[in-house]
This record gives sequence, structure tokens and C-alpha cells, in this order.
Amino acid sequence: MTQKLDLVLDELVTANRILAREEVVDSFGHVSVRHPERPDRYLLSRARAPERIEVEDIMEFTLEGEPIDARDRKPYLERFIHGALYEARPDVQAVVHNHSPSVIPFGVTGTKLKPLLHMCASIGHNVPLWDSHDKFGDTALLVENMDMGRDLAKSLDKGRTGLMRGHGAVVVGQTLRQAVFISVYLELAAKLQMQAMPLGSVKYLTDGEVDKVINRTGPYTLDRAWENWCRRADRTMNASV
Amino acid sequence: MTQKLDLVLDELVTANRILAREEVVDSFGHVSVRHPERPDRYLLSRARAPERIEVEDIMEFTLEGEPIDARDRKPYLERFIHGALYEARPDVQAVVHNHSPSVIPFGVTGTKLKPLLHMCASIGHNVPLWDSHDKFGDTALLVENMDMGRDLAKSLDKGRTGLMRGHGAVVVGQTLRQAVFISVYLELAAKLQMQAMPLGSVKYLTDGEVDKVINRTGPYTLDRAWENWCRRADRTMNASV
Amino acid sequence: MTQKLDLVLDELVTANRILAREEVVDSFGHVSVRHPERPDRYLLSRARAPERIEVEDIMEFTLEGEPIDARDRKPYLERFIHGALYEARPDVQAVVHNHSPSVIPFGVTGTKLKPLLHMCASIGHNVPLWDSHDKFGDTALLVENMDMGRDLAKSLDKGRTGLMRGHGAVVVGQTLRQAVFISVYLELAAKLQMQAMPLGSVKYLTDGEVDKVINRTGPYTLDRAWENWCRRADRTMNASV
Amino acid sequence: MTQKLDLVLDELVTANRILAREEVVDSFGHVSVRHPERPDRYLLSRARAPERIEVEDIMEFTLEGEPIDARDRKPYLERFIHGALYEARPDVQAVVHNHSPSVIPFGVTGTKLKPLLHMCASIGHNVPLWDSHDKFGDTALLVENMDMGRDLAKSLDKGRTGLMRGHGAVVVGQTLRQAVFISVYLELAAKLQMQAMPLGSVKYLTDGEVDKVINRTGPYTLDRAWENWCRRADRTMNASV
Repeated sequence: MTQKLDLVLDELVTANRILAREEVVDSFGHVSVRHPERPDRYLLSRARAPERIEVEDIMEFTLEGEPIDARDRKPYLERFIHGALYEARPDVQAVVHNHSPSVIPFGVTGTKLKPLLHMCASIGHNVPLWDSHDKFGDTALLVENMDMGRDLAKSLDKGRTGLMRGHGAVVVGQTLRQAVFISVYLELAAKLQMQAMPLGSVKYLTDGEVDKVINRTGPYTLDRAWENWCRRADRTMNASV
Repeated sequence: MTQKLDLVLDELVTANRILAREEVVDSFGHVSVRHPERPDRYLLSRARAPERIEVEDIMEFTLEGEPIDARDRKPYLERFIHGALYEARPDVQAVVHNHSPSVIPFGVTGTKLKPLLHMCASIGHNVPLWDSHDKFGDTALLVENMDMGRDLAKSLDKGRTGLMRGHGAVVVGQTLRQAVFISVYLELAAKLQMQAMPLGSVKYLTDGEVDKVINRTGPYTLDRAWENWCRRADRTMNASV
Repeated sequence: MTQKLDLVLDELVTANRILAREEVVDSFGHVSVRHPERPDRYLLSRARAPERIEVEDIMEFTLEGEPIDARDRKPYLERFIHGALYEARPDVQAVVHNHSPSVIPFGVTGTKLKPLLHMCASIGHNVPLWDSHDKFGDTALLVENMDMGRDLAKSLDKGRTGLMRGHGAVVVGQTLRQAVFISVYLELAAKLQMQAMPLGSVKYLTDGEVDKVINRTGPYTLDRAWENWCRRADRTMNASV
Repeated sequence: MTQKLDLVLDELVTANRILAREEVVDSFGHVSVRHPERPDRYLLSRARAPERIEVEDIMEFTLEGEPIDARDRKPYLERFIHGALYEARPDVQAVVHNHSPSVIPFGVTGTKLKPLLHMCASIGHNVPLWDSHDKFGDTALLVENMDMGRDLAKSLDKGRTGLMRGHGAVVVGQTLRQAVFISVYLELAAKLQMQAMPLGSVKYLTDGEVDKVINRTGPYTLDRAWENWCRRADRTMNASV
């Protein structure tokens, strides 16, 4: 195993622990990263709660979701979310799937989620809603094969976030830190919008503002949050990978 | 005492601690399990807050609520909830009674609680509302005899969950893990529905979706949550019983 | 100092710590107990956040609010709330004054706070609202003399709880445990009512139900909560005093 | 370094930790203090999450935001908020900039934030709203130069608090303790107002009441909260500076 891969595995464990500590995931939800040396593979934990994940839990998958060396480790049923996004989006290096509580109401009503706080501009201009029922009818709502994964990935187009009706959200990033950052502030965006709407007509960020914030949200910003979240999750911060 | 019984007692202590840690119960509420060797008996703590319960607190009761060996332990007044459900429902192996905050508003208004998130499909197709006042008039709202327990049990029919007006909820399961799981996600279901309703017309899960999720929610899912909850509640996870 | 007094002082420290741990008070708010041997005196901490209070902080006051042995300890400005209630109500042995967040909205709007959950029946049939502005005009809203204290005490009549406009609440009990119990569930009552009202017409507890719950809420119930709260607040539970 | 300066630096670290512990800031937001010996300078941490800040992180700046001795420490981009306020307001000794969640909805809707609880009178009679878009058009919403800082400072006039559209709030004080106190209760004021408004017409504090509370909120009050917050944030309380 190369040193680069070691660092990526460590960062992925940290990402899991942070998402749990910051309450973006509960016992469910998952986060993956594209393999640093093989872009046709990705790394994702075996089926386990994010708060518990150790480096030994991380498995390697083909984009179609075949485990490379499963041993006795059982994979997440919904790993196809990850593979389909890496397949459709060469720009994507990390994927989060979660059910954070405030995003759920936006997935089951006609209300569009839009950023109203600068920290939340990272969710992007458009947060599309994917309803598995449209194409697949009655299911357990789980993305359990590549067909469903590809349909979901298509709904995101070139965006960074998407909602899944009755299920949750998906977030993509160019790094693990970015995907985690967007996931934390997607939850906040949803919570704030639910609180602001009853107060009156909401002035959302303008399109120009969203662009400018996104352009400004680089390592200077991401690493400040990451350092803090690492300490809160009792993890050591490494150089970004 | 057989080894099987030892494991069940330990699992019941864990269930109490998890329900407290996950804020489904406060100082009140309780969880029981059918006796593994005598289906006409059930196991339930003496009257004590779930967060404090030790294995020595667990008492054995007949279905009518008579303690087998009380010693100086005072039972919960509302143990009849448990006995009446085991009596009416041979399929039920575990019962939770709780007052988790978000379910209360649904018990005092005409609003029907329905699953809108896949994780919450476990609450079932129909969450009936039992009002002790209908048959028993002004009481302390406590289920303090078998008459009241049987009336409540009847309201559940073959379902998994039921609300009690001005009081709380009852949840049944085929295992302790399932009953705890449903209780945690019943609270979430209620919280999410209260948040979604002001946003617009809510698209609940279809009946077909609820069925498919329920069929999928087996040990693969329950044990993932249980492992996580055990660690959060500082308990050791054993094999399921 | 008699042993009885020692126990009362210890119980009062515990009451302070519990109210802080259960988030009924923040850095402000206070709880007192009538002197166990001199009904014309009461015991109350010096001006300090409840979460920090030690037995050395407890001072003794006449009902008019004169400290008996102040030494260098500065009293709470609002101690007159306590003295006026002990003066008007020989049945009262303990008083809590707090600003718990959910009760505040009921103090500044015309909405009447009423119990809808059996655990909250302890707040009583009627929660009156006292507005210092009615008689005293523009003030700092603090009850800073016996005149204001007596006016507030009068508003409670024979009740157990009262709201103060723009300020908070006052709770009285026959024991410290009862006053703390009512304070915790007053906060919950307010929170639940705010959540239930948007769902539809609320079915509150009937008058008969409130009476029956109150009659049932004795040591069996209070001590179960107290044991749990003591452990959460890292305090030893003694026999009730 | 004089002893006075040492105490100020220590107090500033404490202020950071308290704001994080009390959830007024997350990984972002910052607090500064005017230099105790050079009123044309201020002290502010390098760009780091408030929960992590150590005394070595504190930098010294001119009012224009030039670091005196940066070494390898990267400053906050938005330090101009602080300098502009110290420049415009000789009465101001401490400044907090934060994004605490409940204030955000008031910054994006037409609803005016006003104190309804005595503890919140400290936010002042008028909480103005500054919209960077009015004068600067589409930006990343960050106050990244003295022009923007001065425009924001002007919006506060002689007040203690101000909202920033789509961004957060700014609070000024005559001491660090006062600025932190106001920040904590600004968040509470916003939360309570959001909860009170749906209950009916809100009776806010009168102007006379706000004045009287402000006149009363001196060290007796501020230090009680500060002692408590220090312990919660695991910091030692010193004499006020």
C-alpha cells in the first residue's frame, strides 16, 4: 500500500467520524472517495455506522460496485450511488449520502431548497429532487443497483447536491473535505430556510453571490472547519489529500 | 438461570439504556421482553428510570402483571400495557412504552402520523390513536389495570405502533432490537412530519413502498444501528437473542 | 447546625444542579427552600449561576429578604420572589424562578398555557400571567422589592405556577423535588403546546384528568425522576427532606 | 509584554472558547478586543476556529487591518469588520462577528428583531440590517476591505448590534464580557421571537424597560454568566479587564 493511499484511507475514516459527530449521518448514511491511483475504483466502508468505522472497514470497489477483496466484510447495499456518480462525473472525487433531518422535508414537498446564508452557497445554484418512484415505482427507496444509481446521478447534472424523495440527499466534492463541508452546510441551509419562510418573503443569495462565494471557498475556508471538526471528533488532522 | 435468559436480561438492560441515550424515554417510559422460555411471562424492570437500570432490577411477571418474585422491588404501575399486548399478540416478543416529545402533538390533534422517510416506514401503514377517555372517562391517563391494557392492545389491531392521547406511544416488535429501532424512528417520523407540513403538501411513502421497506428491514439494518447505539450508550453488543 | 438542616442544604445544592443540567435555568434563575426549623426564614444561594452552587453559597433570609449572616456574600436581587411566596402561602416549602426558553413565548402573547400531556398536569389547572408593567410601569422587569414580590405572589392565588411577562416563570412546591419536577415539566408543556397548536385543534387534559394526575404524582413518581436527575447532574441522592 | 496585556490576551482566548461552547460561533466567526495600551490597534486571532484558539494565535492589527507582526500566521479575511468599528466608535472596546443560527432568518426577511425578554434587552432598541448588496452589488458577502467595514459600521450608528443580510451579525461592547453576553442573548432573542410570533401578537419590552434593563446590566450580572461560561468552557476566570 502506498503512503498516499494510507493517507486517503485515514482521511476517509475521519470524514465518517466528522459526519457522525456533526449529526449529518446517524447510524446510516455513508461517504466514499475515489481511489487515488485508480480512477475506476472507489473506497467505501463495509456496512457499518459511520461513528464506528475503522480503517480496516474500508473496502475497494469497481465503479459497478463489485468488491475487490471483500473477505468477510458485507458492503453497503446502496454503494451504487457512489459508483454511478464517479462514472458520470470525472470531476468528482468524493461522495456523501445522508439522511440529515432538515433536508428530508424539502424532499417530500414542492418547496425548493435555496441558499440564503453565504456559508451555504456551497450547495450550489440548484438542488434538484430525484424521486425513485418516477421511473422505478414502488421500491424500498434504496439505490440498490446501477440502474437506479445512474438515474440518480443524471438528476444531479453538473451540480453538487441533490435530494432524494422520502430518503435523503447526495453530495459530491472535489475532495473529501469539500464534500463533508457541503454536507454540513446543506443541513444548515435546510434548517434556516424552514425557519426563515414563516417570517416573510425570503431574500435568497443572488446567482452572482453564489458564484462568488463558491469561488472563495478553498482550502483557507475548508481547512479551518476541518481542523475544528477533527478535534471535536477526536481525530488527528493530516495534510489534505 | 439458563444462559439464554442471561443474554435476554442483558439485552433488556441495553435496550433501556439505548432508549434513554437516544432520548426516546426520559425518567419515565419502559421496555419489556417476553420470557424466552415461558411465553406466558414477561420481563420488565422495577419502577426505575431507564437510564439507571441494572440487571438486578429486572422482574418477571405473569401476563396479568403479577410479579413472580418481587422481593422489595416495586413494579411499574403501567406494566399492564406489556401484559395485555403479549396476551393479544402471540407474534410480539418486545414492547416499548414511551413519551418521546414529537409524538405527543399527534396524539392530541386530529393529524394522522404517516411515514414520509424510508427509515420511518417501520412504524407501519397505520398509527392508531387510543384515547383512554373514550371508555374510562377521567383517569390519571395511566394504564393501571388489565381492562385498560386490553382496550389499548385492541386499538393496535395487528399494527406495530399506537398513540395514546395525552400520554405517549406504544411500540411492539418481534425482537427487542426491532422494537427499539421502531421507537427511535417513530420519534423521527413525528418530528419530520411536523417540519414538512408547513412547507406544503406532503408526499408520504406509498403503501407499496412501506411494505417493501418493512420487508427489507432485517438484521442487516437493525444490527448496524444496534452496534452504534450500544457504543453510544456504553454497552457491549452481544449476539441478538 | 442540625442534621436535618444539613440534608436540606445538600438537597438545595442538588436542586440547583439539576435545574441547570436539565436546562430549566441557564446562568440565571434560582431555587429556594423554606428553613426546616424556622418557617419565617428561607434558604437561597448567593448570586451565582445554579450550575456552580456549593453548600457554602447558601444564605439564610427573613421573609422580607434580609440576610441573617451575609458575610461577603452578595444575594440575588430578586430574592423577594421567594419571600413573598413563603409569606402568602404557608403550604409552600420550595420556590423556583426561571427563564426556561419555551415558557417565554406564552408570557408575551395572549396564548394560554395548558397541560396536554399527563406528565405536565402538575403545572395545574390555571397558569396565570403577571405583568409587572400593569402596576409598576417601566422597570427592569426584576422583582426587586417586597411590593413587587407580593403582587406577583397574589397573581398565583393558590396555584403552582405563574408566568411573568417578558421575564420567565415561578413555580412553587411542597418539597424541593416537587418544585423541580413541576419546573422541568412546565418547560416541556410549553414546548409541546407550541408544536401541537399548528397541527390542529388541541385536546387538552380535562379538569378531571388534571386532578387525578396531580393526586397520583407522589414520591413514587418524583423520586424516580430525582434519582435519574441526580446521576445526570453527578450528585448523590439522599432521603427526601 | 505588560501584565495587563497578558490578562487581555487570556480573556480573549476565553471569549473565543465561550462563544464556541455556547454555540454562538461554529468553525467561523471571531471576536476581538481593542489593544489596552494602544487604542489605534486591536487584538484578534489568526484565521482559526474559535473553539481551537490559543494565546499564540492572537495577532495585533492597526485599525486598517495591517498585521504588526504576522510571522507565519494568516489573518481572518474579515478583520476589517473589527477595525472599522473601533475606528468609528471610540466607546467600543470589543467586537464579535458571528453567524449564530437564529439570527440569520431575521437578516433575510423584513421581520424586525426586537427584545421580548429582559435578558435580551442588551441587544438594544434597534437592530439595524445591513445589506452588502445595496452598495457593493454581488460579492462573496465577506467584509474584505475597509470600505465595506466602514459601510457596515455606519449602519450600526450608536447601537450595540446589527444584522448582515445573508451573513450574520455584529455585536459591540465596552468589555469582552459585555460583547459576549450580548451575543449569547442576541441568539436567544431571535430564537424566542421566532417561537412567539406564531402564538399571537407579541408584547415586546417597552422602550423604558429596555433602558432600565440596560442600566442594570453591569458586572453583577455579566460576571455571574462569565463565571458559569468559563467553567463550561473549561477556562479559569480572571478579574475582568
